[in-house]
Amino acid sequence: MDLDLAQRLHRPAQSKILWLVLDGLGGLPHPDTGKSELETARTPNLDALASQSALGLTMPVGYGVTPGSGPGHLALFGYDPLQFDIGRGVLEATGIGFQLGPNDVAARGNFCTLDAAGRISDRRAARIPTQQSAAIVERLRAITIDGLDLFVEPVREHRFVLVLRAPGLSDQITETDPQAEGVAPLLSQPQHPDAARTAAAVNDFVAQASALICDEALANGLVLRGFATIPSLPQMSDVWGLNAASCAIYPMYRGLARLAGMIAIPAGDTIDDQIASLGEHWSQHDYFFCHYKYTDSAGEDGDFDAKVQRLQDFDAALPAFRALDPDVLVISGDHSTPAIMAAHSWHPVPFLLHSATTRHRLGAAFTEADCGQGLLGTFPAKESLPIAMAHAGRLAKYGA
Amino acid sequence: MDLDLAQRLHRPAQSKILWLVLDGLGGLPHPDTGKSELETARTPNLDALASQSALGLTMPVGYGVTPGSGPGHLALFGYDPLQFDIGRGVLEATGIGFQLGPNDVAARGNFCTLDAAGRISDRRAARIPTQQSAAIVERLRAITIDGLDLFVEPVREHRFVLVLRAPGLSDQITETDPQAEGVAPLLSQPQHPDAARTAAAVNDFVAQASALICDEALANGLVLRGFATIPSLPQMSDVWGLNAASCAIYPMYRGLARLAGMIAIPAGDTIDDQIASLGEHWSQHDYFFCHYKYTDSAGEDGDFDAKVQRLQDFDAALPAFRALDPDVLVISGDHSTPAIMAAHSWHPVPFLLHSATTRHRLGAAFTEADCGQGLLGTFPAKESLPIAMAHAGRLAKYGA
Repeated sequence: MDLDLAQRLHRPAQSKILWLVLDGLGGLPHPDTGKSELETARTPNLDALASQSALGLTMPVGYGVTPGSGPGHLALFGYDPLQFDIGRGVLEATGIGFQLGPNDVAARGNFCTLDAAGRISDRRAARIPTQQSAAIVERLRAITIDGLDLFVEPVREHRFVLVLRAPGLSDQITETDPQAEGVAPLLSQPQHPDAARTAAAVNDFVAQASALICDEALANGLVLRGFATIPSLPQMSDVWGLNAASCAIYPMYRGLARLAGMIAIPAGDTIDDQIASLGEHWSQHDYFFCHYKYTDSAGEDGDFDAKVQRLQDFDAALPAFRALDPDVLVISGDHSTPAIMAAHSWHPVPFLLHSATTRHRLGAAFTEADCGQGLLGTFPAKESLPIAMAHAGRLAKYGA
Repeated sequence: MDLDLAQRLHRPAQSKILWLVLDGLGGLPHPDTGKSELETARTPNLDALASQSALGLTMPVGYGVTPGSGPGHLALFGYDPLQFDIGRGVLEATGIGFQLGPNDVAARGNFCTLDAAGRISDRRAARIPTQQSAAIVERLRAITIDGLDLFVEPVREHRFVLVLRAPGLSDQITETDPQAEGVAPLLSQPQHPDAARTAAAVNDFVAQASALICDEALANGLVLRGFATIPSLPQMSDVWGLNAASCAIYPMYRGLARLAGMIAIPAGDTIDDQIASLGEHWSQHDYFFCHYKYTDSAGEDGDFDAKVQRLQDFDAALPAFRALDPDVLVISGDHSTPAIMAAHSWHPVPFLLHSATTRHRLGAAFTEADCGQGLLGTFPAKESLPIAMAHAGRLAKYGA
């Protein structure tokens, strides 16, 4: 649904939407058994729910397109991920819980090893340990540049985040990372006249940083890429009239939800913590996005059995989610992460919606195949929020 | 997929895509048996493959739209056939193997019979035999017009192709064919100031030709229509990073493939010749479009049994295609040609994709019904190339 139409049609209701996102949910058959992770897992609660729910498959971005975490979630939040793009720097900062503001330009940084001639000999500085990297980051915090605030934050191993903050900065500058070895880091160049000051600040930062770390054995250089400002996403309260909350253990997903205008409620460390927190905040919001990471982690690890187990763990928690008694319960994923590929993939993602007004088919299970045969068909993921809004009684009739 | 996005996402890989196009593949049930051509044919190889492959139905142009050969193939080559249009003159020239260049305007010509008053009495000159028509065409080759090159080529029966070649010609001119009898052929008029010269040249050609053929008994006149220049299609190498080859027995399909940037490899006269040629050129390309005409011919003839037989012939050759061991094998069609209609139709077309990373359903057969239940659903034919590219590992992730 076009966001303008959503803004025009949404109407208030007392209903509550609970949206459970199983990261990397979709899978592929194991070659030995011909069964996918979902088909292999024993998930009696999901299957019982599926036979009373609308089923379908969501396409996160488009045919054949493998989505990153950003586009995959934006689509579930109702945005067209081809229209609203999240830069690498923003995603990296979001992933460590750094709250970006409108005057920020964020970049992903790598420490690297430079040879005597200043050429990159190792783009990842031998993946130095996080602790060692964090200590170097600490030293970089001494750098100052007139007229702007600088933030340097450790991520993991050789990776860090740089944020420049001042009114009027621009992300229209070139990267200093040549993405190759045997060549020197690049100067950042403005790609637009308004970006000259930002490029100069970046080059100033790199020069000062180089002086501070040039004696390091491994991390004696750095490269920056993915300069980005936060996308100005229309907020869910305006577009959909929702008072939306996120409940995500990992900062990346809290951050993505925040970009859409969701309030983060505590998520604790476990799915039980999440369920408890949802219960505590149940009266305060009308839409809850709850994120479950582990299906993706296991898929990315290529560990079929672990992904099966994570699905079973989720299934065991499902009755507690249902006990919250949402008017609309959605179970979906941001993308597929088939264990046999050990990576995100383009395959459409199982989708389940339970409410009092769904079309369903008795005997259906929560699998790729049954979702593919579901009455919702295969549809763009960005349409799943309007479908949920409709089932929640939150969209007015179009036309007389 | 938008071609700009394709250009941004494609990445190199060692994989090979073999794309078998069965012209006019889709059918309709025979009224006596209730079974379509595919359901009637004994196709054990296709059926065995179908139960291990992703299935779906492709929609060549749009709901209810019956495609010609041009749009049907352009969609399979990844183009939106509503955006990229191939004029009738270009298709006609392509069909006889005439290699059009950027300075060419092509038209389809018909010889016709004019009465004493110069009015058309038979739009097709009683379908004079090809040989007789070719002899008249030969005489028309004596015509010259200052400043441009002329090519007149016989097609079949009363049909021929006219090509005007010079820099700056335009296809924005009106047709001389009134598409009615009892009226005289029309003068060509420019529809744009830049087209004045082309219209004048066309009228000059018609005048000279009329003088040369006015004594013919049947073919004493001619009409021209479908003036067209070649569409400037983004080339598959640029858009998809593919080194693409075509293997087509009929010049029309070689020509269409050439417009997309494919190199034609020899196709010989039979499907066995095609398989041998594919094998010989296997190392030189990463995408192979192989065209099988006879399903369409039988369908156009309204010969249900012949179409069944042609499907069985293809099925018998399938193991030899599979022996090439492509990473991605696609079996699809440019449109449906149901024998009971004896014509192209708008019905979506069976689609099969085999690779190591498909979702499939054991027991599925290669029929319209099972493809309609397939996990790919019914989708625009122009999305079939991105889907194949994804399965070939040739598309990078979108977004971080």
